[in-house]
Formats: sequence, C-alpha cells, structure tokens
Amino acid sequence: MSCFILDPTLQADCHHLGRLPCCHVLLHRNAAVAWFILVPETQEQDLLSLPAVLREPVMEECSRIAAFVREHFQCPKINFAAIGNLVPQLHLHVVGRRATDLCWPRPVWGNLDRAVAYAPETLCGVIRALFAIRDFSTTQQEEKRP
Amino acid sequence: MSCFILDPTLQADCHHLGRLPCCHVLLHRNAAVAWFILVPETQEQDLLSLPAVLREPVMEECSRIAAFVREHFQCPKINFAAIGNLVPQLHLHVVGRRATDLCWPRPVWGNLDRAVAYAPETLCGVIRALFAIRDFSTTQQEEKRP
Repeated sequence: MSCFILDPTLQADCHHLGRLPCCHVLLHRNAAVAWFILVPETQEQDLLSLPAVLREPVMEECSRIAAFVREHFQCPKINFAAIGNLVPQLHLHVVGRRATDLCWPRPVWGNLDRAVAYAPETLCGVIRALFAIRDFSTTQQEEKRP
Repeated sequence: MSCFILDPTLQADCHHLGRLPCCHVLLHRNAAVAWFILVPETQEQDLLSLPAVLREPVMEECSRIAAFVREHFQCPKINFAAIGNLVPQLHLHVVGRRATDLCWPRPVWGNLDRAVAYAPETLCGVIRALFAIRDFSTTQQEEKRP
C-alpha cells in the first residue's frame, strides 16, 4: 500500500485524473490552457536530483502526456518545467501552448489572470481519451466527490 | 564539422562557456541568479519531443550542471524548464535559486527586473570550476571578443 500523499495545494488546484507507473496525473483546474501536472512518488524535490533510474521513466511519462496534449488539445507547443518554489513536493508542468492562448508568449506561472473551469463533460472526455496512453489508469476518487 | 548555429538571442543574452557532449553550455549574462542554459544540437524545438536516445543524455548533462550550480553557487533549489515561446531553438534553463534572491519565489522568466553583470574574474572562476564536470570543454571564442 502506498503512503504517498499529494501536496494539499496540488490537490486544491488540480483534478486528480489518474496515474502512470511512476507519476500521478493531475490536470490544473484552470482550463484556459491545457495544463497537466505530473507528480512522481518520491521524496526528492528537484527533478535534476533524481537518480537516472527514476528520472528516465518519469521523463518518458511526461513525453507521453505531452504527445497527448499536442493531439487532444491541438497544441503545437509544449512548455515543460519543474519549479517548486512554493510547493516543495516534486511536480512537473506539461503545458500545451498556442499563439492564441490567454498569456502567450509569457509562461503560465503568475501570468494567467483569468480562471476558466472545465465543463464536466469536457473533463470526462479528457479522461476517456487518456486511456489511449499506455499504462494510464484512473480511480477517479476525487471526481466522485460531491 | 558542425553546422549548428546558436540562436542570436541566446548568443546576445548569454556567455557561451563551452560544451558537453550533447549540449552547448551557456550562462545568462544576468548574474542576479545562477542561470545556466543548455542548448542541445537538434532541430527539435520541444524537450518532450526528443527521442529517448537523445533526451536521456541531455537530461544527464542538465543534472551535471544542476549539481555544479548547487555546489559552486551554493543554491539549495534548482528550477528547470524548457519553454521556448519566444526563442524557438530548444534551450533548457537550469536556474539556481535561493530564498534571498531577487525574485524568489517567483520564476525568473519575466520577473528579474534588475540586471547584474558578472565581473570578469567571477566568470573565469566559473569556467575553471566547470572543468570538474565530466566531459566539459570550452573554446571561449565568444569571451575573446572585445
């Protein structure tokens, strides 16, 4: 049984859609951009401090999510980052960008003034589509909450 | 002979210190934070679009630079990002952060209002120290310019 607990800020800011073998797969609640956040189950706080044996499969999972964002959200550009100055738990941003989005060309962090919620049916469509990704699974515990 | 040309904006913004097997090693001219930029020799524009055979050694080189930043600049935290909304050539930010730096806890992109230049002797010290990194080499062509 895993005793890994997602950071409360990430839980509050994101829909917890499911997981891949190394990472929890979260989607930021702000639908203004296609903003996925992957959280590997590790106590290490910096991506570049991970041992290669964990860093490589984690990056492979990020690449799968990036390919999904390009196709499902029709985003030609992906921004990728591990920052964590405010939330210390290691989390990896995979953000689909396009030249028409709300804060292009600025990075999303601190520059998305307007929050747009996902419609429930849009969210369900994203989850259904995620099953095309190898090894994706969902428990959807969070989404069952009232 | 390589026909790879560094993006002019990166050339203007950075000191080109040398290279590792996959990446050119640049240091942002703004000394307010320890801000390295690694540029792999590829035409691909997104880190997460690289094939694993290139992504993995590139990430390994970023990890070596991150370890150097932690030790040489005494930075407890590393921010890592591949953004490229303004400069399309793939470049990877490895930024040393500490709670006392000029824009903590905000990310550096767009938030560093004040530019501080490296003193020449500080820059030489960085380059000398970089030789402790496996496979680092320098030509220092840029630094010879008047």
